[in-house]
Amino acid sequence: MKVGVFDSGVGGLTVVKSLLEQKLFKEIIYFGDTARVPYGVKDKNTIIRYAVEALEFFKNFDIDILVIACNTVSAYALERLVQEADIPVVGVINPGAIALQNAFEDRDTNILVIGTKATVKSGNYETLLKQEGYKNITSIPTGLFVPIVEEGIFEGEVLDATMRYYFKDVKNIDAVILGCTHFPLIEKKISGYFGGAKCIHSGDAIVEYLQKNYNCDKNFERTSVQFFASDNPDGLKNVAREWLGDLLHE
Amino acid sequence: MKVGVFDSGVGGLTVVKSLLEQKLFKEIIYFGDTARVPYGVKDKNTIIRYAVEALEFFKNFDIDILVIACNTVSAYALERLVQEADIPVVGVINPGAIALQNAFEDRDTNILVIGTKATVKSGNYETLLKQEGYKNITSIPTGLFVPIVEEGIFEGEVLDATMRYYFKDVKNIDAVILGCTHFPLIEKKISGYFGGAKCIHSGDAIVEYLQKNYNCDKNFERTSVQFFASDNPDGLKNVAREWLGDLLHE
Repeated sequence: MKVGVFDSGVGGLTVVKSLLEQKLFKEIIYFGDTARVPYGVKDKNTIIRYAVEALEFFKNFDIDILVIACNTVSAYALERLVQEADIPVVGVINPGAIALQNAFEDRDTNILVIGTKATVKSGNYETLLKQEGYKNITSIPTGLFVPIVEEGIFEGEVLDATMRYYFKDVKNIDAVILGCTHFPLIEKKISGYFGGAKCIHSGDAIVEYLQKNYNCDKNFERTSVQFFASDNPDGLKNVAREWLGDLLHE
Repeated sequence: MKVGVFDSGVGGLTVVKSLLEQKLFKEIIYFGDTARVPYGVKDKNTIIRYAVEALEFFKNFDIDILVIACNTVSAYALERLVQEADIPVVGVINPGAIALQNAFEDRDTNILVIGTKATVKSGNYETLLKQEGYKNITSIPTGLFVPIVEEGIFEGEVLDATMRYYFKDVKNIDAVILGCTHFPLIEKKISGYFGGAKCIHSGDAIVEYLQKNYNCDKNFERTSVQFFASDNPDGLKNVAREWLGDLLHE
């Protein structure tokens, strides 16, 4: 099977990492819209327009399924993409909410949802989890984590100060939904801030979801990955090498 | 006279502020490319392409002169814009270098240039100042200041930690070139970090430059300003009201 992975930039590589680790596909086509990243501070209509344009790009590759790695795109454009595409399109939000349910049966679990301004504003995670009976959900936009991670900062006082800034009024968290593909890179620090809270990671969540719903369980020995970017493709490939390392067969 | 002001996003409003304070123009047309902001992490060719597209936008307005408020665009696309436009196009980098010379005759002045990754990589300020005989120039990309300011953070521990992160190896600075339109909003903090160093501000620099080179000294009683954005124009107008306040006659 051949999967397309769409992201607003480099963040979706954390999802590719999970797909590679679990050997779900024979071929991965990754497209990051680095010329227009970030999406998370932009308007709903703009996000939808960009996502529909990305769909056109994937028509070049005869993919079997499209994974929307970006939480912001999943929140705003998934419905539209599902309508327009003639292949299955899967976002990360529904899988994330299901992963949380699998990990925490107790409906009194204290849940923190973090993401970009746009993702949190959409309220998608919150809506899904409330439908399932979860009562204690706090959502906080933590947009600065994105440029901090892109700056290559994964620990230290800038990150510590930013966590205190965002989380100063939040206590006793059991589970954190990492509602942005950049956040797995600082997962340990976020978990540590809340005394070891479990973090729900879009990449792991979507792997579970694909295995269960799309028969993606082939354990391909070798996955070929092609990377495309709307700006500075070499930059994207460098980040891919850094984040994915030995998982890439070059 | 009618001026166009182009910026990658909201940052150029600090330049509009200087233009309004000095009453240089009868009319200001501001365009922020908020759908594709930030430019400062993007590739030279992408930045040029976006800037040329913005030029098309301004053709709708019969402007007399175009001011490029964005340092990144000034660094990479000014030459091309000057070629393509049939009106004068002025960037902020040359005016900034001249403002520094006016403030510091001593060629041993310790100068710090800060800006986005792309602006610093261009080396434009450094080249201009070295041509004028300045010897002690340090340049540091401080891209995180942009999202920090856009998050509405102008003081406090996130900013303090970020300044220490970027400036840990820098001492004895006399002058700081604020090579990004967002930075005037944290000018006091940056100046304070270096014990009261003088900051060179693109807005003030370009006012001096326009007065000297383009006869812009009309002291118009009233300036009408129109704001345009490629994404979320209402968001831009809100920031404009917040930053420019009473300078706007609505």
